[in-house]
Amino acid sequence: MNAELINPFLKAVIEVLSTMARIEAKPGKPFVKKDKVARGDVTGMVGLAGKQLKGSLALSFSEKAILQIATGMLGEPIDQVDDSIADMVGEITNMVTGITKKILSEKGYKFEMAIPTTIIGKNHSLTHKTSGPVIIIPFTVEAGEFFVEVCFE
Amino acid sequence: MNAELINPFLKAVIEVLSTMARIEAKPGKPFVKKDKVARGDVTGMVGLAGKQLKGSLALSFSEKAILQIATGMLGEPIDQVDDSIADMVGEITNMVTGITKKILSEKGYKFEMAIPTTIIGKNHSLTHKTSGPVIIIPFTVEAGEFFVEVCFE
Repeated sequence: MNAELINPFLKAVIEVLSTMARIEAKPGKPFVKKDKVARGDVTGMVGLAGKQLKGSLALSFSEKAILQIATGMLGEPIDQVDDSIADMVGEITNMVTGITKKILSEKGYKFEMAIPTTIIGKNHSLTHKTSGPVIIIPFTVEAGEFFVEVCFE
Repeated sequence: MNAELINPFLKAVIEVLSTMARIEAKPGKPFVKKDKVARGDVTGMVGLAGKQLKGSLALSFSEKAILQIATGMLGEPIDQVDDSIADMVGEITNMVTGITKKILSEKGYKFEMAIPTTIIGKNHSLTHKTSGPVIIIPFTVEAGEFFVEVCFE
C-alpha cells in the first residue's frame, strides 16, 4: 500500500485532535502489521467500500490516551470510559474518515463510508480479514498511545 | 428498519452455520438495541456502504458459543480462542454478508462490503454511531449465545 493512501489518514488524525481537543498527536513510523498485535481499550472502526476499493479503518486507543482526548474535547476532567466516550470516539472516527475521504477522492480513490462502531473492552485485539497489507500508524499523546490501523484492497 | 432488511441476515447466519459447522443456530426475537448492551468475547464486524444505503453488521459471540462453532467447522475439538478463531470469524462474517448482499441486491438494496475485522477481548461492547435503529437478533447454539447486530441508515 502506498503512502498516498496512508498519509491522508495520518494528517486527518492530527487535524481532528488538534482542532477538537487542542491536543498534539505525535505520529511514529508506520509499519506493516504482522505478528505484532496492537491492543487497545477503546476502538473506533469504520468500513470503507467502493466499486474499486474496499478497506477498513480502526483508531485504537489506550484508556489513558482516550481519557486525555475526552478531557480536551469536552473541556472538563473525564476519568472514566462510558457511553459518552463511545459516542465521542464514533464522532472522531467519522471526522477522520470524512477528511480522508475528501482528500482521497480528489486523488481518484472513491469509496463510501459505512456506519462507525465503537468497541469498548480492556485490551482487545483486531484482526482484519484481508489479503492486502494492514498498516499501523502509532501515535502518542501526553498520557499514552494509540494506533491507527488502515487496510485497503 | 423493516423486516425485509433484517430477515436476510437471519437466514444467512442459520445457513452458514448449518452448512459450515453442522450447527443449528436458533434465532430469538429481534429487538431494537437501546440501553441493553450486548457484550461478546469474539466479534466479527463489517461495514456496508453504498450511495443510498450505509450500515454495519456485527456477529458477537460468547467464548463458549464460538468454541462450539469452531469445533464444528474444523472437525476437531477447539478449546481456546486464538488467531485461527479470528480468521474463522472473519470468514463467517464474509459469508453471511455475501449471502445477504445477494438477497438484498435482488430486492433493490445495493451496497458494497468493506473488509471484515475480528475483535477479540473478554466482554467487549459495541456502540454504533447512527441516527437509525440498531437491531439485535439473539441466537443460541448448544454451548451458549451470540448476537447479530445490524444497523442501516
